[in-house]
Amino acid sequence: MSILNKQILLVSRPTGDAVASNFKLVETALPELNDGQVLVRHHYLSLDPYMRWRMNDAKSYAPPQPLNEVMIGGTVGEVIESRHPKFKTGDMVAGMGGWQQYARVDAQLPGALRKVDASRMPLSAYLGSLGMPGVTAWYGLMKICAPKPGDTVVVSAASGAVGSVVGQLAKAHSCRVVGFAGGVEKCAYVVNELGFDACIDYKAHATPASLLAALEAQTPKGVDACFENVGGAVFDATLLRMSDFGRIALCGMIAGYDGVPTPLARPDLILQSRLKVEGFIVSEHLQFWPEALAELSGLMAAGRLKFRESIAPRIEDAPEAFLGLLKGRNFGKQLVKLI
Amino acid sequence: MSILNKQILLVSRPTGDAVASNFKLVETALPELNDGQVLVRHHYLSLDPYMRWRMNDAKSYAPPQPLNEVMIGGTVGEVIESRHPKFKTGDMVAGMGGWQQYARVDAQLPGALRKVDASRMPLSAYLGSLGMPGVTAWYGLMKICAPKPGDTVVVSAASGAVGSVVGQLAKAHSCRVVGFAGGVEKCAYVVNELGFDACIDYKAHATPASLLAALEAQTPKGVDACFENVGGAVFDATLLRMSDFGRIALCGMIAGYDGVPTPLARPDLILQSRLKVEGFIVSEHLQFWPEALAELSGLMAAGRLKFRESIAPRIEDAPEAFLGLLKGRNFGKQLVKLI
Repeated sequence: MSILNKQILLVSRPTGDAVASNFKLVETALPELNDGQVLVRHHYLSLDPYMRWRMNDAKSYAPPQPLNEVMIGGTVGEVIESRHPKFKTGDMVAGMGGWQQYARVDAQLPGALRKVDASRMPLSAYLGSLGMPGVTAWYGLMKICAPKPGDTVVVSAASGAVGSVVGQLAKAHSCRVVGFAGGVEKCAYVVNELGFDACIDYKAHATPASLLAALEAQTPKGVDACFENVGGAVFDATLLRMSDFGRIALCGMIAGYDGVPTPLARPDLILQSRLKVEGFIVSEHLQFWPEALAELSGLMAAGRLKFRESIAPRIEDAPEAFLGLLKGRNFGKQLVKLI
Repeated sequence: MSILNKQILLVSRPTGDAVASNFKLVETALPELNDGQVLVRHHYLSLDPYMRWRMNDAKSYAPPQPLNEVMIGGTVGEVIESRHPKFKTGDMVAGMGGWQQYARVDAQLPGALRKVDASRMPLSAYLGSLGMPGVTAWYGLMKICAPKPGDTVVVSAASGAVGSVVGQLAKAHSCRVVGFAGGVEKCAYVVNELGFDACIDYKAHATPASLLAALEAQTPKGVDACFENVGGAVFDATLLRMSDFGRIALCGMIAGYDGVPTPLARPDLILQSRLKVEGFIVSEHLQFWPEALAELSGLMAAGRLKFRESIAPRIEDAPEAFLGLLKGRNFGKQLVKLI
């Protein structure tokens, strides 16, 4: 009996903003499994800013997403058939199944699938705070920002999947934490729910001077560490507030994903303030996953690592949900429910 | 008997380009020495790009040069009177005596004066390859760029006091070294005398695309490490050629000293290529001076650390020589002869 699998392909590359017509929904019959393969029925698909980069045919840290193939993406789901001895029907697993309802996975490939415990944590958390975004936050904060108690840490996209973990983790390490987010509602959530000391609504500041004044008011002792998810005006303002010997973890430049890259106004400050700036992607630091997940799971179990999700209800909604994510219209970790 | 001392003061701050009228020559009688003081007759004054920054009244790594005081600057000279037990008449010393013929120095202050051996090395070398510029080159290359044999290292201002040492040191560590310099004559010197593998005349390239093409031709395997003395278009081009996990030592942004700061066109490349960028000033790493000078002296004694000087003949010439340095009109380490 053949299963029909709804899939979303990338069929064209954006010129400027990504648009819905870059994607196409198709329905294909799933072939039989080969030895060593596992069939996963996806419960959730993760949508993340890095995907926008993969849509371009340009030098990046990873090859571009090929045209007319299923869009890449992190997934969690249930094993419904297995021809691999390590997995059995009913196992809950996380992997990179892509924008589709089902995935045939070569389970012997290292890191292709990992079992997750959905009995104590919600399954979707393994795509967020206990998955790639969480470990990204942990690595950049702990290994690059290296915060000391009393440090002031600034986080952009503070209500997002990565930023929300960065801030709560920095609070757990006794830092003063100031976020940037877009809109009154997100900022209120960041302060009242996530426990940041302050959150600046960048949409309320029309000029660089106004944005800088708002940041100055919240960082009276300067900024010791910055976890940068956005780039652009917010990063320019943060650079102006960096204290001597500050550390900057460069995790995202979402401001420049669509269209032309955004320049950095004052690179001379890196010299004047003797800063360390480091770009990273978490998949190159897999050795830290166990350490990171141990700390993050502990915080979550203690109720000190909250998260919020925006859930699109059907696979057909994935393109619009992704375009909304790029414009900041999501609120919390953006997921697509596939079952 | 009172000695008359010609001094150059900063009397106004530049708006835009620095100009000669920012400086003023005065002649004052030297007061008697106090206990613990030493009177040094300067042989050479060092002119360096960092001085331009000090002329501004702006946030920087050091306080601004006060108005109506003697301009700061590194000096070498001879002790002609001493009321400190560690120094005697005839000692040759290096210090921060400033833009003047004589300096009364509180010799007990740590680092205020150090004796130098002028019998085996030319005295002026202690303002260049065996002084602050040399140690700057050593620290940024060895501690930030961390070159491995076979790495490609790019150095801007390659014929200058710092850049010339960076390149020769990188060659001594078996790297491919590509410089940037302004003009055919400087580039020929960098390759033929200093032994760089290539040197690109940035003045011969009117567009970013042309500059990048020239750099591509000389860095077929990309750039592993960059020692940046200039900023601006040259740095933008280098960023585009950086290999994954490249290191950038940010030592100077001379392109932005006059007037408005120069933006960085593609900060997203720091993330895409997972680069480490670090700004530094050598005076915060004094613990490395002995190690640095040991290696640099050894190279110089072996004839593998060549240098070239531009010498202005009188203290009256210091302002014009300094303005020329900011425009790249010097060729090699810029000095003023004071005796």
